[in-house]
Amino acid sequence: MLYLVGLGLADETDITVKGLEVVKRAERVYLEAYTSILHVGKEKLEAFYGRPVIIADREMVESSSDEILEGAEKSDIAFLVVGDPFGATTHTDLVLRAQELSIPTKSIPNASILNAVGATGLQLYNFGQTVSIVFFTDSWKPASFYDRIRENASIGLHTLLLLDIKVKEQSLENMARGRKIYEPPRYMTVAQCAQQLLEIEADKQEGICSEDSLAIGCARVGADDQNFACGTLKELCEIDVGPPLHSVVLIGKRAHELERDYIRPFAINQETFDASWHKYHKQS
Amino acid sequence: MLYLVGLGLADETDITVKGLEVVKRAERVYLEAYTSILHVGKEKLEAFYGRPVIIADREMVESSSDEILEGAEKSDIAFLVVGDPFGATTHTDLVLRAQELSIPTKSIPNASILNAVGATGLQLYNFGQTVSIVFFTDSWKPASFYDRIRENASIGLHTLLLLDIKVKEQSLENMARGRKIYEPPRYMTVAQCAQQLLEIEADKQEGICSEDSLAIGCARVGADDQNFACGTLKELCEIDVGPPLHSVVLIGKRAHELERDYIRPFAINQETFDASWHKYHKQS
Repeated sequence: MLYLVGLGLADETDITVKGLEVVKRAERVYLEAYTSILHVGKEKLEAFYGRPVIIADREMVESSSDEILEGAEKSDIAFLVVGDPFGATTHTDLVLRAQELSIPTKSIPNASILNAVGATGLQLYNFGQTVSIVFFTDSWKPASFYDRIRENASIGLHTLLLLDIKVKEQSLENMARGRKIYEPPRYMTVAQCAQQLLEIEADKQEGICSEDSLAIGCARVGADDQNFACGTLKELCEIDVGPPLHSVVLIGKRAHELERDYIRPFAINQETFDASWHKYHKQS
Repeated sequence: MLYLVGLGLADETDITVKGLEVVKRAERVYLEAYTSILHVGKEKLEAFYGRPVIIADREMVESSSDEILEGAEKSDIAFLVVGDPFGATTHTDLVLRAQELSIPTKSIPNASILNAVGATGLQLYNFGQTVSIVFFTDSWKPASFYDRIRENASIGLHTLLLLDIKVKEQSLENMARGRKIYEPPRYMTVAQCAQQLLEIEADKQEGICSEDSLAIGCARVGADDQNFACGTLKELCEIDVGPPLHSVVLIGKRAHELERDYIRPFAINQETFDASWHKYHKQS
């Protein structure tokens, strides 16, 4: 059996009791380590589980899935995923590959940022599609996210933006020379995201994510030190919400007064918050 | 401290290790028992926790929240919620009330149906707003859900439908006479939901949820015996997917081929599945 075990969002104790039982008895334990991160390292997990943990990077999961699945027809393999197992497309691929090999699979759900973002006080019912924001480079500034945000905004919904992380990336030069030297990991910040949104807005000028649009910058959601900063995108360009991971919620115009009351204490500046709320939100 | 502890979706072992630690040391432990249910009863939870559990019904949470919060400024109170603590508006109210009383709060996230529905193979990124479907009565058939589904459909997104549950409801007669006699609990089935959708479609005739629209009926998501049945709404009107809880996903037209490949094995009838997919979905 291949078990996909969700680890939740913060530390080693966010695993479920059911998930921990699987980890303790599995033949091998892999940790998917490229779509998200916990706030504790592999060593902490190994100490907590009393088991060795094998780091599975993107290359291994996408190119060597049969290695991960080896022997899973007769013994249990645990594949640990930060958040919920179904947060990223990659894991669907792994399950489909297991099915091709007639290996049974089971997933152990856990919290994901998609529901834990409810801690902002915004109602989960009122979120539209989730959007990924990737790091811009000088020559590559993909702007398709703008269309997705426009679609959500057109029906008044909030948009959760998941911010890019780059782990175990090679520089172009090292890649060209076949040198397995990796850059330090990079995690997009709330401020970087806000800057990229405004850069595309300046280009498109449709008023989808304007300087005075309200958003919430979220850091380390689900952890003891989770941090929310609510403000205009212009304000968020300057904000430092601390260590990763970060995400951003763009607030839809159909937001309810109860949601406003809950998020207002997170406002960077209550005057600009009230002004933008009054300008953009139906019920004010 | 008031702790809102998510219990996950199926049984007593779906609690996180962190949540279990809170439950074991809390002064009092409440179980919110009207917006969702686990597949195990209070007794099983009490045996697993080694602690008494107080059932908190809607009346208690909405009218007597101060009773729940009593003493929380100096000791820990655990308020257990099936799924994730932020799945229902009610819990936001409880947190706001605690804040008014200067009682610190913390929530322990867990899986909710909003992310666990990823087990269908549909991408969580492609879901629009979540919609609740309530039991129709002879005189009350609220149809506002139709507008919400239309909005999601207009941008090609999937819609998760959460189905009504009625626990501890009084009949009109018993309520009028002040008799605290309660009806047996009722949980809307996939078939009942599909029938209600078609009833409203017959009235509105906009083709938002037609007889040949594809949907997935989901039962006991996250449990060992979770069950998915994919078919047209007409087919789902006749389906029995077993014991509660049920939910339904209406499949958006932007669905990807990889999603199709994943859900096709759940098809009630692969011929009608292929025909409806070809008719409604862009990539076929």
